Order: sequence, then C-alpha cells, then structure tokens
Amino acid sequence: MTTVASELLSKAQAARAASRHVRSLSTGAKNEAILAISDALEREANTLLAANTLDMDAGRKTGLAAAFLARLELTAEGLKSMANGVRTVATLPDPVGEEFDAKVLANGIRLARRRVPLGVIGTIFEARPEVPADISSLCLKSGNAVILRGGSDAINTNRALGKVIRAALEGSGVPADAVQIIESTDRALVQQMVKLDAYIDLLIPRGGPDLVHFVNAEATMPSITGGIGVCHTYVDATADADMAADVIFNAKVQAPAKCNALDTVLVHPLAAPAVLPKMAAKLASANVELHCDHRALALIGPGNGLVSAATTNDWGTEFLALVLSVKVVDSMDEAIEHIETHGSGHTEAILTSDYANAMRFVDEVDAGVVLVNASTRFNDGGQFGLGAEVAISTNKLHARGPMGLQELTTYKWVALGNGQVRG
Amino acid sequence: MTTVASELLSKAQAARAASRHVRSLSTGAKNEAILAISDALEREANTLLAANTLDMDAGRKTGLAAAFLARLELTAEGLKSMANGVRTVATLPDPVGEEFDAKVLANGIRLARRRVPLGVIGTIFEARPEVPADISSLCLKSGNAVILRGGSDAINTNRALGKVIRAALEGSGVPADAVQIIESTDRALVQQMVKLDAYIDLLIPRGGPDLVHFVNAEATMPSITGGIGVCHTYVDATADADMAADVIFNAKVQAPAKCNALDTVLVHPLAAPAVLPKMAAKLASANVELHCDHRALALIGPGNGLVSAATTNDWGTEFLALVLSVKVVDSMDEAIEHIETHGSGHTEAILTSDYANAMRFVDEVDAGVVLVNASTRFNDGGQFGLGAEVAISTNKLHARGPMGLQELTTYKWVALGNGQVRG
Repeated sequence: MTTVASELLSKAQAARAASRHVRSLSTGAKNEAILAISDALEREANTLLAANTLDMDAGRKTGLAAAFLARLELTAEGLKSMANGVRTVATLPDPVGEEFDAKVLANGIRLARRRVPLGVIGTIFEARPEVPADISSLCLKSGNAVILRGGSDAINTNRALGKVIRAALEGSGVPADAVQIIESTDRALVQQMVKLDAYIDLLIPRGGPDLVHFVNAEATMPSITGGIGVCHTYVDATADADMAADVIFNAKVQAPAKCNALDTVLVHPLAAPAVLPKMAAKLASANVELHCDHRALALIGPGNGLVSAATTNDWGTEFLALVLSVKVVDSMDEAIEHIETHGSGHTEAILTSDYANAMRFVDEVDAGVVLVNASTRFNDGGQFGLGAEVAISTNKLHARGPMGLQELTTYKWVALGNGQVRG
Repeated sequence: MTTVASELLSKAQAARAASRHVRSLSTGAKNEAILAISDALEREANTLLAANTLDMDAGRKTGLAAAFLARLELTAEGLKSMANGVRTVATLPDPVGEEFDAKVLANGIRLARRRVPLGVIGTIFEARPEVPADISSLCLKSGNAVILRGGSDAINTNRALGKVIRAALEGSGVPADAVQIIESTDRALVQQMVKLDAYIDLLIPRGGPDLVHFVNAEATMPSITGGIGVCHTYVDATADADMAADVIFNAKVQAPAKCNALDTVLVHPLAAPAVLPKMAAKLASANVELHCDHRALALIGPGNGLVSAATTNDWGTEFLALVLSVKVVDSMDEAIEHIETHGSGHTEAILTSDYANAMRFVDEVDAGVVLVNASTRFNDGGQFGLGAEVAISTNKLHARGPMGLQELTTYKWVALGNGQVRG
C-alpha cells in the first residue's frame, strides 16, 4: 500500500492499541460499559434521531429507493429496540477465558486451550443504523476492539452513534478507542481498509452480496462470507403433506428478505401430487410467486397468475422476496446433487418420514446448517441459543452457520510447567 | 482466471468429486486404506528409492546445496520411518462425525454441531519426500481429498510416491482420485493453484518462509501460516538460574532448525547476573553464538569468540541455527512489549517463580502457545498429544498452534425436528 488515508491509519493504530486493554477487561467491567452504551443511546435519543433525520432528508433529496430509505430510517421505537439489544449483550455469558481440552501431559505440563479475543474486528456496512451499537457491544463483550466503516448515506447517523458510544465507554473507564468510527466517506478508503491486515484480524461485511463478494475477494485478512443463502427444502417421498405445506410456508413467508428464507423446493415424484397443490394454495394466500419446472407446473396449474414456468435462472438464485422456485426431482440423490450444484452452503432442509433418508441427507449435504423436518428460518443465532448473532457464515473455516460471541474469539494454548525440557 | 493448466484443473475437479466419497467413509475403511498405503510404501521400496536416486543425481548435477540435498534424500531408513508414520495415523481417533454443543431447543428441535471434513486440502511443498505420504494419510483419515504440488527437484520421487499411494487406495476400495499429485513442474501452475478456491478449501504450504508468505499473500482460499516462529523466553526476576539455563539450552539446542526453537532470551536485571553467565557457559558447550545487547554483553563477556554485540536485526529474527539473541529488559512489561513488537505469535515462554507474573504473562502475551517454565520446543502436535501434526499455525482463525486431524475438519449444525416453524 502506498498511502493510507491518515484517518484510517490512525484509527486502526488506536484500535490495535486499545485491543490490548479490552482483551484483559473483566466481565463486570465489560458489562458495565455495555449497559452504559444502552443507557446513553436512550438518553441521547433526540440527538441521534436528529442526526438520522439529516441522512433521511439528504437521501430523499438524492432520490434513494424507498426500501433503502426504510432500512436507513431510525425511529424512536427502533432506537429503543437498539438499546435493548445492547442491554441483552450484557446478560450473555462471556466467552473469554474459558479453557477447554485441558489435560496433564505425561511430563507433568498442564495444558489447555484458552479462549481469547481475536483482537481487532473490522466491519464494513451499508445503511443499517443498528450495526454500530450492535457490533460494538458484541465486540466489546468478546474482548475485541472494532473499526466501523458505514456507508456515506448514513454518515450523520453513524457519526452521532459513534460519539454516543465512545462517550459511554469513556464514562465507564473503558478506552473509547476500542470503538472507531471512520468518518471519511471517501470510497477509496474501503479499498485501503481491506488491506490493513496488520491492524484488523477479521473483517465482517454487513450488507448485500456485492459488498460481501468485494470484501471476500479483496481482503488480505480473513473475512466472513455471511448472509448469502440460496436455501433448499427437499420434500421426500414419505413427507407428510400438511407438515410440508406448513414448513415451506413458514420458510418462505415469515421473513422473505432474510438470508435463511427458502428459495427452492425440490419434491420427490411420489410426494408431489399431494404436496404441491396444498403448498401452492397456502402460498397463494400470501401472494408468493411460484416458478415451476414443467412437472411441478402440471401438478400446480396456472393458479391465479402467480405461477409460471421456471427458467434456468431460478435455480441457485436467492430471491429475498415472495418468490419460490419449485422442481420435481426423481430421487433424493438428484435433490442432493441439485443442492451441491446450486446451494450456497447456507441452509438446507429435508422433509421426510423416512429415518434412513433423514440420516443420509444430513450426512451428505454440505452446508452450515442442515435441518430435518423444520423451517430453514431456524438458522439464526437467537433461535440456536447463541443469544446474539454477528453474521451467518457460509465459510468453512473458523465459524460456520450463526456466529455468536464465541465465534468472535480464538484460543491460545497455555502450558504450565516446572522446568520441563524436551527429550 | 483465463486458462488453467488442464492437468491442474482436471485433477482439482477429480479431487472435488472424490471428496464427496471420502467424507462419508467409515473409520474402518479409512484405516484399511491408510494401512494399505504404509504396506505399499515398504513393498515398493526399491522403486521409490530408485526414483529418489534420479532426483538426487539431477540435484547434484545442477549443484543444489548440501542442506537441500539432505532434505531431498530418501533413504531406506527414511522410507521405513515414513511407512511407520502413516501406520500411526491409522491408530489415531477419527475426528469426523463427533457431535458437540448438543442441546434440545425449547421447541423440541435437537441441535448439535457435527464435525465434518473440510473437503479438499491443497498442499504446496518443497523438496520434502515425507510430505506426500504424511499429508495424504492425515487428509484421508480426516475425510478430505488432497492435491499435492511438490517442487520440481523432487518430481521423480513425488510421482513414484503418488503412484504407490493411489494404487494402494484403489486396492482398498477408496477412490484413487482422493490423492492427486500434480506432475507438471511449470511454475506458473502454482500461481494458478492458489486461485482455485472453487476446488480447494484450505491450502497448506510446507516449506520455507518465502513459500509461506507467497501462499498467504496470493491464495484466494484460506491458507495456513505455519512454521514461522520467532520465539522468545523471558527470564523473570525470580527465575531459578539452573532451571533457566537448562530450559534455554533445550529450547535452543535440541533441534535448532525447527520453528519452535528459541530465538531470543529477554532477562530481568535482577536475574541477569546469576542466569546469563550460567546460560552462556552451557550454550558454549554446544557452540551456540550469542548476539547480546550491551548489558547482557557486560555480564557474559566476550566468551570464546561465540559472543558478539547484537544489532537491530537480531530482534524479531528466526535464526533456525545455533544462534541466540540476548537482551536485558527492565521489566516484564518491557519483555511483553518486545514480544508484541518482534514475535510472530508462534511460541512464547516465561521462566519465573512468581505466581502473579506467570498468570499475567499468560494472559497478556498474544501467541498460539504460551508456556510457563518449559521449553519452547513443546509447541508440537506430538508433544501436545494430538498424535500427528499438519502444521503449527500462527493464524488466529480456525486453528492456532499445532494442527492435528481435528484441525483438518469443520463442523455443520444438524437440526432434527418434527415439523417446527418459526413464530
């Protein structure tokens, strides 16, 4: 790198220095600081909402899309929920310091792996006002410093949040430098940030697929591939038709814009006649568009204009909307092959009454989360009891599936001896 | 990538396809194949040794350095030890399939993390004939396929080993394609291999720092930073002088070319007068060169020509030879600071009688392995009871310190339900 923007470099250095303090903080001290952040978010509501109004006004003026503006908007209620989310982090168990795989070697050395913070987490995020408080509290609880770089459309909101969070840290005796908000909106800075492996141990992109792919391709430090879910549910020959309709409806409709929402249903020919019409009727009640292969189309019929013939683009696509692709496959093997080819390794499910097929699907499908007889929407840190979620990873290394506090740590081996030498 | 050498691409595709078979093999089937490899290595000794002779003759002709030739040479004894190493892998516990963090959610879903193979491991290695059999058996035991790309100087040896290993797999009913030996010695191929993230899940460089740095910088898939150890031992004010001399001697002399060998001793001023002369005398018996800061130099004296003044290059250098740098530091804080600045996060030790200092050093030093009152040479998979070692990682993510079979796996979340939907 030839020149790094001085703001970025000085904040990265400050975060690295602060990480050495926060990695040693007691659980009590970290919780106190986290509660101070949540209190400050509520106390400074007027300031924060006013800053967000500046961004919203600017966004309307530049003609940002309605969906974008909806994500950007911070309401009084949203702020309250943000503060409560932070408060919850204080109640979660502290992963730092836990020892595991402990043993005493034959030579008397006491050996264990001890969970320790990663160091400095970097986050690059789009117009999502919940990210700074959310990620800051999770990083702090796991003993990490954090560098946050938000989109220019939310710059006033992010600056105001950063000021409030840093002041709260300072007030509770934690170095404010543990949370860094990059204020420059120069896009060149993102290019530089992804190369700062000397200062950032893990980079977490929070945004759409373009951002995630950019970070994964360009970052010289490890990064999380998160939030890209092309999710399948295979309806086996013996699946209960009512359960299939219910689970598929939930997986598609409950939160269609989330990465764990269902994208493609694969059905065994023996199940298709009973399942597909029932499923289609239920999904029609929520105005779900169905893109069907010719065999599914023949069983479902044209419907009320919501059903159409699938094209090759319908396989392997994350719809993030009320659209579902449907295909009749000749066997579970074909379903597994389809998933291997088109899946993103995020969330895959089978609906079946057959024990052997359930076990084989779980064994052979290679994804972060594999479910039997349950909605893909369960791939979620909260649902899995992790308490909070930084991302849902489709990486194979380090963390796979929902990432909670523990996944923001690494370990070191600690060996306690009394003079041992190697023979 | 525009064009990938067809050998590389076809072998990568074959490895990926084979990985789907080997990930489901039973422990028994894997062990049988591993034992077949070890038997074949012994049975085909003449062929293998003859192939190695071709490489050795060519190496002598092109004037390769003696140390390089020594690493390249495969003796009958070396082959026997290689076969025994492979045999040992069959006796190690199979990490695949183990479930952990199991729980039943409030809605009745049975959830667990299940250990599964990573998929395809890539290895780029220099003239080290033990690598193909070693890595193949470890990858196979952990359910992974492997692509091996060795240096051109060992090409005959590697080809012969590949042939023997693949035939042994075939004979025991495991797809030979699970082990791929790249035969082209075109260097451009390495540049292409590090970009094959679509086929290779983890890349392990086995060689010198140049190779490791090249792979880490260029690989688009995760890679292991292994084998680069700038290792320190801090001798605290209260350290026992005899123990310090013994442990330092062992850490420096027992295997100076290994990455966990000691590079720098940092000594507290209160310990230095008793420890340094004793240590220097002991190290002199093994002809260890000492590069000393001025305070250490004053205490040790010029010795028999083995002692000299340190230069700035002596801090943060991995010597891989009978050379040790020595510095008197004013406090443990200065020692920790020195380690933070100059260490490679590999292996760091403190020698002390003070409980609080031992605990604080372990807490504050950020490295894969931190030892109290023990030789740095213990950072080793075999010594730590992992049974075998793929590498010693200084990465923070995924695996840190010695990597055994378990570190060649990832996990997937398995959720067993009976029709649960998310509310």
